Amino acid sequence: MIRKLTEAFYRRKIEQIQARLEAAGLNGLLLLDVSNVIYACGFFHVPSERPLGLFIPRQGNPALFVPLLEQENAADTWISDIRTYFEYPGEVHPVEWMVKESGVKPLGIDSINHDVFRRLGEGVVTTPLIEEMRWVKDAEEIELVEAAAGYADYCLEQVRDHAAEVIRSGGTELDILKMCLGATREKMQREVGEIFQLRGGAIVGTVHSGPRAALPHGSPLDRQPQPGEPLIAGIGATVGGYHAESGATFVVGEPVRDVMRCLQAASDCDAAGVAALRAGNTCASVNEAALKVLKDYGLGEAIRHRIGHGMGLQGHEGPWLAPGDQTLLQPHMVFSNEPGIYRPGVDGYRTINSMIVTDGAARVPSRFLAENPPERRVLSL
Amino acid sequence: MIRKLTEAFYRRKIEQIQARLEAAGLNGLLLLDVSNVIYACGFFHVPSERPLGLFIPRQGNPALFVPLLEQENAADTWISDIRTYFEYPGEVHPVEWMVKESGVKPLGIDSINHDVFRRLGEGVVTTPLIEEMRWVKDAEEIELVEAAAGYADYCLEQVRDHAAEVIRSGGTELDILKMCLGATREKMQREVGEIFQLRGGAIVGTVHSGPRAALPHGSPLDRQPQPGEPLIAGIGATVGGYHAESGATFVVGEPVRDVMRCLQAASDCDAAGVAALRAGNTCASVNEAALKVLKDYGLGEAIRHRIGHGMGLQGHEGPWLAPGDQTLLQPHMVFSNEPGIYRPGVDGYRTINSMIVTDGAARVPSRFLAENPPERRVLSL
Repeated sequence: MIRKLTEAFYRRKIEQIQARLEAAGLNGLLLLDVSNVIYACGFFHVPSERPLGLFIPRQGNPALFVPLLEQENAADTWISDIRTYFEYPGEVHPVEWMVKESGVKPLGIDSINHDVFRRLGEGVVTTPLIEEMRWVKDAEEIELVEAAAGYADYCLEQVRDHAAEVIRSGGTELDILKMCLGATREKMQREVGEIFQLRGGAIVGTVHSGPRAALPHGSPLDRQPQPGEPLIAGIGATVGGYHAESGATFVVGEPVRDVMRCLQAASDCDAAGVAALRAGNTCASVNEAALKVLKDYGLGEAIRHRIGHGMGLQGHEGPWLAPGDQTLLQPHMVFSNEPGIYRPGVDGYRTINSMIVTDGAARVPSRFLAENPPERRVLSL
Repeated sequence: MIRKLTEAFYRRKIEQIQARLEAAGLNGLLLLDVSNVIYACGFFHVPSERPLGLFIPRQGNPALFVPLLEQENAADTWISDIRTYFEYPGEVHPVEWMVKESGVKPLGIDSINHDVFRRLGEGVVTTPLIEEMRWVKDAEEIELVEAAAGYADYCLEQVRDHAAEVIRSGGTELDILKMCLGATREKMQREVGEIFQLRGGAIVGTVHSGPRAALPHGSPLDRQPQPGEPLIAGIGATVGGYHAESGATFVVGEPVRDVMRCLQAASDCDAAGVAALRAGNTCASVNEAALKVLKDYGLGEAIRHRIGHGMGLQGHEGPWLAPGDQTLLQPHMVFSNEPGIYRPGVDGYRTINSMIVTDGAARVPSRFLAENPPERRVLSL
């Protein structure tokens, strides 16, 4: 049974952060970003305009700085030093109060609004320390990502097995989505119990068909998929706070035009992304190697986005498999692999795998695409 | 029939912004915050790590700066000048590119991360110009807020009329929530059609009962409300992007302890908030006047949060009815009014009204509390 990350995990993270503070010459770190706070201490909370911070001194115990209305929730964590302020905005800005409470300088901050930063005075600096730590996952984190990938796959299997039925009985994109998410939600509630929905939607997704599949970011509609159209399903699953994605493009009824060729191009592009995802390569080079395949197919004009992004506590997080990201790949980084072909007014295609960097070839915990090559993704009406 | 805000509304906003730029000595404004972009041009979009900006020059036409994958969505707006960048992060940071594309200095920016700001060089400043404009609503915006308040009320009416039934048949907090949200969603889909869900959930809420009602921020559970317990329902509704809230505390079966006295305290606190909400008063003074009532009831220790917050395109936005906010109230500002009494381990109470500042007494578009005094909120089992 998959479980939440343990107090031992978080205590180890705090120690690792403290070692990095030492190396960076900082006497403490104040985390303000919701995902960073969760990463370092496991306090799952809903962010709001009321700042909430985790302070980690170079030595000693961490402290949670929270608005009064989070007091009881914060007390449920393993952290014993909980300090509260009444409300936002307050006579003193809550982040100014936190900096003062921390009592150390130089103090690092993970991420902060410019206007708030300007209030803080000397001895406070921003640092990418925690973001870079999050890029490389521990074994326990990888386990959660893999579990999430399994549920995203399961959701796609529901589309493969039941979407034709839904369409035959007059159903729409929204009906297909409801069907696959509903079945997966039920399975997750049964199997991962208490960590099913620590944060946000445990299973979310989109279904697009026909010319609207050419919109990378659109909403599913009350629209019935038509014979010959590609149908894109993109699914994100979250287990214990950790995210993975699986996505596939299906064909409704018999394929027309160059539909099968486009599916093959997406498949080859995905394979090129996996092949390039090796420790030591830059993130940007993976993007380049993968997108080159689409260009070689003559589909360069149909490219609308990079090949992928980091994943973990955020659905999208650094580093980025995109132009401009010169980060070197390290084992246990986790990425999406999302070949996309968009032809406005005509059709669109996108597949998604989750990938993990290893010492050798990339591991792909998403199994759906490998087990269901293009010819198995035809939804016979 | 309630409709989306029109192009005329947005063109007026652009003109008003340009007049303010003139007064502020700025040659242009770059909006990066999702709600600010929606406010000034109506481009409803889903924010991501890929920056998206609306540039408004001191004179002339605005331009949308978007990632390539939003190109078609941006082209659906009334704005004709759409400029795209390929991807995030890119060789040049997208915000640096936007500043360059704007071609003007001094350039104001609404809200920005400190690390990104540092890349931008001289002649770029942050400005609260747009945030302050958003505080005072136009008649068309007020109409949407009032429609939203009506649906939030309707959702509470479902709780009043059907929650006892759900509890009698063994139902839980989650079942009550599902029942009231489901009925309201259906009504909204039918009545407000295309602007039902422009952004996020059109109708969302929480239901808490018993000792857990003492947690201001918790999640509804598979827990059956018990006789004698207060049950808090808090509902947020969004119409055409504009938000309102209604909330009530009900009593399951017969009231015990000092339950009716606490409901009366919340009711008196709400009334004090309404009475203090007059143009010219400070925001902080409304909070003080309202919370004084709870203190006078001997419930000072049970206060966990301020009396309210601004509402509009964001569920929570400035100005804040809270300590430290010296903003003077102006007609057509919109606020929540949320008396809260939280007794950890015992019980909790919260009611919510939406309020509008006028030239005279505050207007309260939320009608549920006025029409359903405490004695009508008893859910007889």
